[in-house]
Amino acid sequence: MAENGARRIRLGMVGGGTGAFIGAVHRIAARIDGDYELVAGALSSNPETAMESGKNLRLAEDRIYTSYEDMAAKESARPDGIEAVAIVTPNHVHFGPAKTFLEAGIHVICDKPVTSTLEDARALAEVQPKNGAKFLLTHNYTGFPLVRQARELVASGALGKLRVVQVEYPQEWLTEATDPDNKQAAWRTDPKRSGAGGAIGDIGTHAYNLARFVTGLTTEAVSADLQSFVPGRELDDNVHILLRFEGGARGMLWASQVAVGNENGLQLRVYGDKGGLEWRQDNPNYMWFTEFGKPKQLLTRGGSISAPPAASMNVRIPAGHPEGYLEAFATLYSQFAQVIRGEGDDVAPLLPSLADGIEGLEFIMAAVASSKADGKWTRLSDV
Amino acid sequence: MAENGARRIRLGMVGGGTGAFIGAVHRIAARIDGDYELVAGALSSNPETAMESGKNLRLAEDRIYTSYEDMAAKESARPDGIEAVAIVTPNHVHFGPAKTFLEAGIHVICDKPVTSTLEDARALAEVQPKNGAKFLLTHNYTGFPLVRQARELVASGALGKLRVVQVEYPQEWLTEATDPDNKQAAWRTDPKRSGAGGAIGDIGTHAYNLARFVTGLTTEAVSADLQSFVPGRELDDNVHILLRFEGGARGMLWASQVAVGNENGLQLRVYGDKGGLEWRQDNPNYMWFTEFGKPKQLLTRGGSISAPPAASMNVRIPAGHPEGYLEAFATLYSQFAQVIRGEGDDVAPLLPSLADGIEGLEFIMAAVASSKADGKWTRLSDV
Amino acid sequence: MAENGARRIRLGMVGGGTGAFIGAVHRIAARIDGDYELVAGALSSNPETAMESGKNLRLAEDRIYTSYEDMAAKESARPDGIEAVAIVTPNHVHFGPAKTFLEAGIHVICDKPVTSTLEDARALAEVQPKNGAKFLLTHNYTGFPLVRQARELVASGALGKLRVVQVEYPQEWLTEATDPDNKQAAWRTDPKRSGAGGAIGDIGTHAYNLARFVTGLTTEAVSADLQSFVPGRELDDNVHILLRFEGGARGMLWASQVAVGNENGLQLRVYGDKGGLEWRQDNPNYMWFTEFGKPKQLLTRGGSISAPPAASMNVRIPAGHPEGYLEAFATLYSQFAQVIRGEGDDVAPLLPSLADGIEGLEFIMAAVASSKADGKWTRLSDV
Amino acid sequence: MAENGARRIRLGMVGGGTGAFIGAVHRIAARIDGDYELVAGALSSNPETAMESGKNLRLAEDRIYTSYEDMAAKESARPDGIEAVAIVTPNHVHFGPAKTFLEAGIHVICDKPVTSTLEDARALAEVQPKNGAKFLLTHNYTGFPLVRQARELVASGALGKLRVVQVEYPQEWLTEATDPDNKQAAWRTDPKRSGAGGAIGDIGTHAYNLARFVTGLTTEAVSADLQSFVPGRELDDNVHILLRFEGGARGMLWASQVAVGNENGLQLRVYGDKGGLEWRQDNPNYMWFTEFGKPKQLLTRGGSISAPPAASMNVRIPAGHPEGYLEAFATLYSQFAQVIRGEGDDVAPLLPSLADGIEGLEFIMAAVASSKADGKWTRLSDV
Repeated sequence: MAENGARRIRLGMVGGGTGAFIGAVHRIAARIDGDYELVAGALSSNPETAMESGKNLRLAEDRIYTSYEDMAAKESARPDGIEAVAIVTPNHVHFGPAKTFLEAGIHVICDKPVTSTLEDARALAEVQPKNGAKFLLTHNYTGFPLVRQARELVASGALGKLRVVQVEYPQEWLTEATDPDNKQAAWRTDPKRSGAGGAIGDIGTHAYNLARFVTGLTTEAVSADLQSFVPGRELDDNVHILLRFEGGARGMLWASQVAVGNENGLQLRVYGDKGGLEWRQDNPNYMWFTEFGKPKQLLTRGGSISAPPAASMNVRIPAGHPEGYLEAFATLYSQFAQVIRGEGDDVAPLLPSLADGIEGLEFIMAAVASSKADGKWTRLSDV
Repeated sequence: MAENGARRIRLGMVGGGTGAFIGAVHRIAARIDGDYELVAGALSSNPETAMESGKNLRLAEDRIYTSYEDMAAKESARPDGIEAVAIVTPNHVHFGPAKTFLEAGIHVICDKPVTSTLEDARALAEVQPKNGAKFLLTHNYTGFPLVRQARELVASGALGKLRVVQVEYPQEWLTEATDPDNKQAAWRTDPKRSGAGGAIGDIGTHAYNLARFVTGLTTEAVSADLQSFVPGRELDDNVHILLRFEGGARGMLWASQVAVGNENGLQLRVYGDKGGLEWRQDNPNYMWFTEFGKPKQLLTRGGSISAPPAASMNVRIPAGHPEGYLEAFATLYSQFAQVIRGEGDDVAPLLPSLADGIEGLEFIMAAVASSKADGKWTRLSDV
Repeated sequence: MAENGARRIRLGMVGGGTGAFIGAVHRIAARIDGDYELVAGALSSNPETAMESGKNLRLAEDRIYTSYEDMAAKESARPDGIEAVAIVTPNHVHFGPAKTFLEAGIHVICDKPVTSTLEDARALAEVQPKNGAKFLLTHNYTGFPLVRQARELVASGALGKLRVVQVEYPQEWLTEATDPDNKQAAWRTDPKRSGAGGAIGDIGTHAYNLARFVTGLTTEAVSADLQSFVPGRELDDNVHILLRFEGGARGMLWASQVAVGNENGLQLRVYGDKGGLEWRQDNPNYMWFTEFGKPKQLLTRGGSISAPPAASMNVRIPAGHPEGYLEAFATLYSQFAQVIRGEGDDVAPLLPSLADGIEGLEFIMAAVASSKADGKWTRLSDV
Repeated sequence: MAENGARRIRLGMVGGGTGAFIGAVHRIAARIDGDYELVAGALSSNPETAMESGKNLRLAEDRIYTSYEDMAAKESARPDGIEAVAIVTPNHVHFGPAKTFLEAGIHVICDKPVTSTLEDARALAEVQPKNGAKFLLTHNYTGFPLVRQARELVASGALGKLRVVQVEYPQEWLTEATDPDNKQAAWRTDPKRSGAGGAIGDIGTHAYNLARFVTGLTTEAVSADLQSFVPGRELDDNVHILLRFEGGARGMLWASQVAVGNENGLQLRVYGDKGGLEWRQDNPNYMWFTEFGKPKQLLTRGGSISAPPAASMNVRIPAGHPEGYLEAFATLYSQFAQVIRGEGDDVAPLLPSLADGIEGLEFIMAAVASSKADGKWTRLSDV
C-alpha cells in the first residue's frame, strides 16, 4: 500500500466509459491503496461518450482520446505521460491495445481473458515490450487474502499430496434470453465480441485460474460437456468439465449462468491425503481448513493462525471486519505498482501474468474441442 | 404412523448382529413409528454371535437362526411367523435372502444396493413372489420430508423445465488405508463382498438415486472418471461423473471417500428455467428454493409454505425441531407397513423399489465401463 | 440402549390422547431405543377420547382408564402392572398424577414444567415415593449429544473460568392473537392451565435449564422485563432477563413467542477466560468451540475429537448423519430405563430431576416478581 | 460517487500517523470513491512521527503540522487550504480539534464517539460553525447497503409495529490483560483517554447507534449491568443492557470484548407484528427478512428485490460480489462530499450527526449510572 511516500503512478484507461461496469471497478481498485492517479483515457470509441466520460473523471481535455492508438502515441511522447494503462474493453478489443501499449513501453493492466482468441494471446507473447514494460492480467479472485493463504497452505504441505479439486462458478443472471439493451449481457453472449466461449470464457476461466493458483497443479487434460440452454443463445451458458492433473489429482469444474439462486457462487474445494480446504467468494473472509482426524477449523482473514507474510496477504483491516471484491482487486493493482517501482520481487509470483492468460485460453479451446468431440480427453497443448 | 390401532407387523432380520452398524439403524427405524415387532433373526452366520445377538434383542431362542434359509423355512411354517424381513448383510449376501424370502411369501426390506451384481438384480426381478410379497429398497435419503417436498416442487412445475442437476456425496472416512479391523471399512473396500464399485456403489448410488427421485428425469448416458487414490485399494474411492438426461438436462455427480473435512456431505442442487433448489443431508430440515428474479427462500421441514400432503411428508414434530437420518429411515419402514396392510396406495410410488435397485446397478456398471473406456458416454441400457 | 437383552419396562401414560402433540413425542422417545412397552393409559379425561386413543395405541381395553387415580390403583395391584408412567398433560395436571404414582411406587416421567405452581413443586418434593420410585423431568434439550459434550467441556476446564452466558429461545408462533381452536396455543396462553408464566414457563425455563445444565453455574439473582405484546394476551410472550451467577459470571436470557422468522431458535453461548462455545438446537449436530488465540473449531456429533464417554453421549449413528429432537428425547427415556434397572449410576447425574423442576419454577417466579418490581434483582430463594 | 466531474475536496487529517489503525481506514474510505484529496495533516503530536507520516502520505512539507491548532490557522488562511478535516485521534482528543475546525469554517469528519465526555459533546453543540461548516460522525456501520435497506423496510411498515430489538457486538480481543505495548488496546482500556466507558463506549455505542438508525425508535430508558472481567481492568469489558423504547418496544443489547470466538460479531435483529429481519456485520451482503406466515427470505446487497433508491444504497458492484467494511465507510465519506457540495439533500438524513453523537454519550452515561444503581431504569435525559 503506497502510504510509504512513493510517487503515484500515472495511469491511463482504455474503455470504461460512463455506464460500463468493469471500468469503474478498475478505477476503484486503482484508488483504494493510493498508488495510481488516472490522468488519461480512451474511454470510448464514441467521441462524445469519450469526452463526457473523461470530464466526469476530471481528466484534462487534451488527455481525453478517442482511440487507444492516439493515446499511446501522444502519452508516450509526453514527459508526464502515463506509465501504465488499464484495458477494460470487451474481450475482442484487448489484443490491439495490449500490443500497442507494451510496444510503447507502457505497463499494461488487462482485464481477463487476455484476448478473445488463443492466436492473439500467443501473438501477444511474441511482442517485445519496450523498456521492460510489465503485464498484469486481472484475475481478481487471486487477490483475496484467504485465497493467498490457501495457496500457501497447499504449498506448505498442510494438505499433503493433492487428490481432488472441486471448483465451481454458478450464476443465474442469464437464465432467460438476453435483453438486447443489457450492454453487459449483450457482448458476453455475442461470439464476435466475447470469443469462442460463453460461460466458460466469462467465469469458467476464473474458476480454472483460481484452482490453478491455489493448487499449483499442472493440468494434463480436460473432458467437457458444454450446453446452451437458452433458446437462440449461440454461446455456452453451462459448462461441465472433468480435469486431470499431472501427478494424479483429478477435478471437476462447473460454471453456469443459468443456475437460479446463485449470484456469484465461486467456490473452491481442495482435498489432499492430509487435509482439505474450502472457500467461497460470496463470504470471502472465511475459509474451512481440516486436518484429517481433527475438527474443521474456520480460518478468518487475518485471524488467529500463523498467517502468510503480510506482504502477500495485504490485509487492510482487522479480522472480523469484512473485506470484499474491491479490496481483492485493489491488491492486484497495489502489488503491480510495487512491481513497476522495482520493489515487488516477493509479490510478483502472485500476480496473474500473460502466461496465465494464454493458459486460460488454451483451457477454453481445449474444453470447446473436447465438448465437440463428445467429451474426448483433450490436452491443453493440443489446441 | 401406526398409532391407529393397526396390528404390529412381525419382523425378522438377516444380518445385523451385535456390532453391525446398519442393522441397528434398521431396528430403530422399525421401532420409531411402532409398526413392527422384531420376533426372529438370522443375525449372524456365526452361531455364537447369532445367539448372543438374538438374546440381546429379546428374541425367543427358537427364533434365533444361524441361516436365513432355515429362518425362511421355519418362520413361513409358523402360524405366527414373520410377515416381513429386513436384510442388512453385506452386499454380496443380499440376493440369496431376498430371493428366498420373496419366494416364501415374506415381504422384503433390503438395504441398498439391492445386490452386488447387476445379473443378480435382474435375476431377482424374475423371482415370482409368493402371495404378492412386496419389496422395499432402503434408499433412505428419499424419506426426508424436504426431499419429498423437493420432488413435489419439481413435479408441480415450480422450477420449470429442468436444466442442471448437481449432486454430490463427499466423505472423508477412507482417506487413509483401511484398518483391517474396521469391519465397516473392510467389506466396503473388498470387491468380493461389496461388488464392482467402491465409493460409487456405497454412496454414489445414493446420490444418483436422490437425484432421480427428486427430478424424475430419465438418464440417457454417463461419462465417468473413477479413481482409487489410496495405495493398494482395489475399488474406487473417488468418482467424477457427467450425466445426460432425456430432454436435455445435464448433471454432475461427485462421490468421494477421501474428501477431508466431509462427514456425510450429501447435497443436491437442481436448476430449471424458472427456479432452483438446494438441499443438504447434514442439515436436512432446511431447503433453499428460489424463483428466478426473487429472493432466495429458506423452506423448513413443516414450515410456512403450502406443503405436500401430510401422508407423503410424514412430519412428526413441529418446524424448527430437527428431525434427522433415523426419522427419514423410519418413514420408509412406516409407509412400507402401510403398503403391507393394503393402505399405502398413495405412498407406494414414493418408496424405493426393486426397479430402483436395478437402475442403481446399471448406473454403477455404466460408470465403471465408461471410466474404463476413458470417459466414453455410456447408456445404462448398454451394460 | 436396550439391545442388551434387558426386559422392556411396562409403561403407562397420563394424557396424550389422539391429537395431542407432546404425548406422541414421548411415545416415539420411548420406542426409539426399545426400552419400554406401552401397556396402559389414562389418555384423556373424556371417556370416548380415552377409549379411542387407547385402542389406537393397541392397549388392552381393561387397561384404558379415564382417570389417573383409577389407573394408579389398578395398575399397582396387577402383577404385570406398569412400572413407570409418562405424564404429558397440561401443566396444571402434572402435580396430581406425579404425587399419586410416586406414592404408588411407580416411576414417573413428567413433562416440564414439573407443576404449574412453585408450591406444588415444593409439595412434590415432600412426597415419600414408595419403593424408591424415581422421577424424570423431560428437559429434553439436555439429551442432545453435543449439549452433553458442552457440559463436559466446561467441566473439564476447557473454557477456563466462566464469564458470560448468552441463552435465547425465540419462536414466532404466537405473533398473532391465539386462535381458540388451536389446542396447543390455547392452554399455553391461559394462566389457569399454564401457570404464572407464558413464554417464560413454556420456553424460558428450557433456555434456563440448558444454561444451568451446561455451565453448572449457580444462579444468584435475576433482573427481568416481561412483556405481553399481543393485545388481550394475559401471559408474557416476550421475556428479557439479566442473570448473575455465583462466582461472578453474568448472563442474558431472551425468550420470545413473537420473534417473526424464528421457529425454535434455542441457542446457547458460553464464554470463559480460556475459550468459548456456541450451540443451536435447530442444527444440533454441530457446535462451535474456540480456544482463545486459535481458530474456531466446528465440533460434530460423534466426530473427530476426544469425545465424552459413549454412555453419556448416546450417539446412535455416525457423524455427519443428523440426529434430532426425538433422539435427544429418547436418550432421556433410555437412560432413565438404565436408572430404573439399577444400571444407571453413571448417567443419573445427567438426567433432569425434581430439583431441576423446582429450580425452574423458582426461576419463573423470581423473574415474574422482578419484572413487577421494575427489574429489581431478585434471588431465586426469595420467592 | 464522484465520477461526475466534481472537483475533489481538499482534506486534512488530525491523528492517524504511521501505525494507527483508524486513520488508515479513513484514508482508504476517502479514496475509494475519489471525492477527496488528502493535502494536509497534523498526524501526530510527536514532530518526528508527524513529519515521517506526512511524507509517507506525500503531503507537501509545509502542510505537515504538529498541532491541529496550527493546521487550522494556517490552512484556513491559504487560498488552497483544506475544506474538510478528518479527526482520528483517541477519544479525548476529539473535542478540541472538532471545535477548532468548525470555528475555522472547515467541515469536520469525526471518528466516534464524538467526544470522551457528555459535557464536551453538549459543548460542541453550542459551537457556531463558521460559514455553515458541516459535521459527520463516522458511525460507519450505517453505511452498509443492507443496513440502509433494513431502515427503509422498517420505515415502509414491512415489519409492522416494532416489538423487539436484539442487538449485540461481541469481540474477543481483550479476553486477556492488555499488553501495554498494544497501542490500540492501551488507550481503549484507559479511562483518561477513552472516557467513562470501555466496551460500552468502543462498541456498545456502535450497536446502540445501529439499532436506532434502523428502527427509528426513541429510547425511553435503559437498565444496565456492566462488568470488568479481566483483573486490573478499570473499564467495563462486558455490557448487558435492557432497553425500553417509546411506544412499547423492548430490547436487549450485549457488547463484549471477552467473548472468545467472536471477532467483530455485530448483529441486529428486529421484530414487529408483521415481520422480522436479521443482519450480521461479518457477512454483511446478506440479510434475513421474514413476513409472518411466509418462508424466510435471504435478501442480498443489490439483489432481487425492490430495493431503496440507488442514492441511498450506494452499491458499487453487482450482487454476489461482496462489499465490506471499507465500502460502508466510504459511503459516509462520499455522501458527506455530496452534502459539502450542496447536492446531498436526499442523503443528509442518513448521515450520522452531532446529535447522534450526543445521544451516544447519553446512552453511555445512562448505562453507567444504571449499572451503579444496581440496574435502575434510567432515562437518557436524566444524565
